[in-house]
Amino acid sequence: MQSFVYYTPTKVFFGQDAESHIGEALKGYGVKKVLLHYGGGSIKRIGLYDKVVAQLTGAGIPFVEVGGVEPNPKIRLVRSTVELCRREGVDFLLGVGGGSVSDSCKAVGLGLATGLDPWEAVVKNIVPEKPFPMGLVLTISAAGSEMSNSCVITNEEEHLKRGCNHDANRPTFAFMNPANTLSVSPYQTAAGVVDIMMHTMERYLTRDPDTLLTDRLAEALLRTVRECGARLAQDPSDLEARAQIMWASSLAHNDLTGCGRNKTFTAHKIEHDLSGVHDNITHGAGLAVVFPAWVRYEYRNGLQRFAQWAVNIWDADPQAEPEQAVLEGVANMVSYFRSLGMPTTMEELGVKPEEYETISRLTTDGDSKTIPSFGGPLTSREIQEIYRLAEAPKA
Amino acid sequence: MQSFVYYTPTKVFFGQDAESHIGEALKGYGVKKVLLHYGGGSIKRIGLYDKVVAQLTGAGIPFVEVGGVEPNPKIRLVRSTVELCRREGVDFLLGVGGGSVSDSCKAVGLGLATGLDPWEAVVKNIVPEKPFPMGLVLTISAAGSEMSNSCVITNEEEHLKRGCNHDANRPTFAFMNPANTLSVSPYQTAAGVVDIMMHTMERYLTRDPDTLLTDRLAEALLRTVRECGARLAQDPSDLEARAQIMWASSLAHNDLTGCGRNKTFTAHKIEHDLSGVHDNITHGAGLAVVFPAWVRYEYRNGLQRFAQWAVNIWDADPQAEPEQAVLEGVANMVSYFRSLGMPTTMEELGVKPEEYETISRLTTDGDSKTIPSFGGPLTSREIQEIYRLAEAPKA
Repeated sequence: MQSFVYYTPTKVFFGQDAESHIGEALKGYGVKKVLLHYGGGSIKRIGLYDKVVAQLTGAGIPFVEVGGVEPNPKIRLVRSTVELCRREGVDFLLGVGGGSVSDSCKAVGLGLATGLDPWEAVVKNIVPEKPFPMGLVLTISAAGSEMSNSCVITNEEEHLKRGCNHDANRPTFAFMNPANTLSVSPYQTAAGVVDIMMHTMERYLTRDPDTLLTDRLAEALLRTVRECGARLAQDPSDLEARAQIMWASSLAHNDLTGCGRNKTFTAHKIEHDLSGVHDNITHGAGLAVVFPAWVRYEYRNGLQRFAQWAVNIWDADPQAEPEQAVLEGVANMVSYFRSLGMPTTMEELGVKPEEYETISRLTTDGDSKTIPSFGGPLTSREIQEIYRLAEAPKA
Repeated sequence: MQSFVYYTPTKVFFGQDAESHIGEALKGYGVKKVLLHYGGGSIKRIGLYDKVVAQLTGAGIPFVEVGGVEPNPKIRLVRSTVELCRREGVDFLLGVGGGSVSDSCKAVGLGLATGLDPWEAVVKNIVPEKPFPMGLVLTISAAGSEMSNSCVITNEEEHLKRGCNHDANRPTFAFMNPANTLSVSPYQTAAGVVDIMMHTMERYLTRDPDTLLTDRLAEALLRTVRECGARLAQDPSDLEARAQIMWASSLAHNDLTGCGRNKTFTAHKIEHDLSGVHDNITHGAGLAVVFPAWVRYEYRNGLQRFAQWAVNIWDADPQAEPEQAVLEGVANMVSYFRSLGMPTTMEELGVKPEEYETISRLTTDGDSKTIPSFGGPLTSREIQEIYRLAEAPKA
């Protein structure tokens, strides 16, 4: 087992009354002025906006607001929001939404806390001395940004999606009411399920031995999410399944399932530039395509590990030869993703072979760097091999 | 699932180099003067004392020290240590030891942060406005105090062991090097394994439905600890097993395994007064006697839940009738505790039938209150029934 640091300071309020704690929590924290940050307005349709505003008003905390955060949140809005917050003397960022809103808040906070251009702070991984405090009222279970140290932002002019990971990105509060995810579409719900699983599986499929407890916890989480994802595909109103998946989204990405293991997050890195270029690709859907291909590309470099993954999570036959078990596991996983309505090929994702070279070279910064993976670093050429493994088998 | 608040702010440094982070962590936190708090001196024999002192000296942080914390830590030492810390202007408590040292630190911190007598602060559950910062260099995997919100102190004059639970009890830092547990005796190692399991099982055996993820995580933890406890009983030098158990000790009691469930911790409450009166009883050993008896007393009030526990953790036959499964599970658990060298009867614990009434009335404050349990509140009479279920079966 590798040495590790585990730090999850986010205070989580979970349950059907989660948002009723916003006022008291922020007041107790000494908040003077809030930025209320959100996306396209669905929070108004479900009545959540009014509840949050009532909490702030009830606690006597003034606020300014910036809506319009897009999926794959953009640096342009982050920059203008930083300016606004400076002018208005905002001392707390309250996001209402999912991973995009959360990451937009985080990038705003990095700009405010460092005094730098937020894109520079993200790309250069500048860690502020003191985190800018923020909270998230979660409305979709997927990114796990509500407890994670990760912030991913898209630079629309440069067609780049880049992230940074450090503890200053961990939110101060998360308010998580499963009922607030009831209006999420089946497609986005499924993409969330895939994203949650991926945060855990990318931690699981790495080289370090002797992480028995971390492995068992990861398997417990994955099997629960698998079961509850299937339940939601049948019945989107299953609130208990939504609750399990919502809590799993946080635990999948606060690093509980990665303690003692080094991580490469290769499929995430490959997917980021697919959805960076194709703005209509949902992150989880992109991962449903890339990850199985990545497993097929890498499994021979860690046959025992991949076989354990296939057996303990995807019901591969424990008596099978390891290679057979892995292939059975991948097939079961792909078939599960399909059952949720997820794409599993590049074609379904809308990415054409003639784009492969261009996009893969974004991931390697124009072939100026490689990205880490299970068996060693990958160049754009190998990333293209993985794309090709994500094509439907030829007839 | 019940609503819950999850808050685990403790920053954990885990691994073979854990204590090398003490200096930087405390300096980064702005610590000016430390109380170094420890037990009977074993930390000097294993060389840990010198390493910790070197860290403080290297970081230029002055310290005063108080050793001599006993198992079932005593309020008398807490009180004199509070006085010393006030005189010396200590602003950070650094414990080096296990749960006793940690809880002694916590009680000292409560005295300092509230300005009250620390016994009063514990018994009246007074929550200070701001926690007094503390860190723990862990030397035994058991109590989970390094991340928990719990503080348990013994009042030797009144023969009372009392605790309080609130977030101000959560340490700021924990430094966890599994190698620092290598000198722990097989008996204390086994008692630690029982204590860890108990923190999880007392959360598991409660009434709330729909906690699938919490259940699966708890089962993952319990099965890992069970396996690694057996490995350590065979080979105490198995450092990887020690690592799994050490990390499990924290996760078992930081409330990860209790999210969404109400808890009664009945066996803990019953055991506290056994070891409060019999100072030679190790907490985990006391629990190994009380808990199986408590299961036998309560299981009919939640047959399905107890059967799930028996099947998923203790390998009871999933095809058996629920009652049969529970009894098989209890038998397997008791036999596991025996295999670790733990006592499983009141007689082995050294508690005599003629003491039952007196001790049980300590737990109910002289019959002025009841304690909560699975099927409803217990009086001293029912506690005595549980004691009797912990006697060896008559021939």
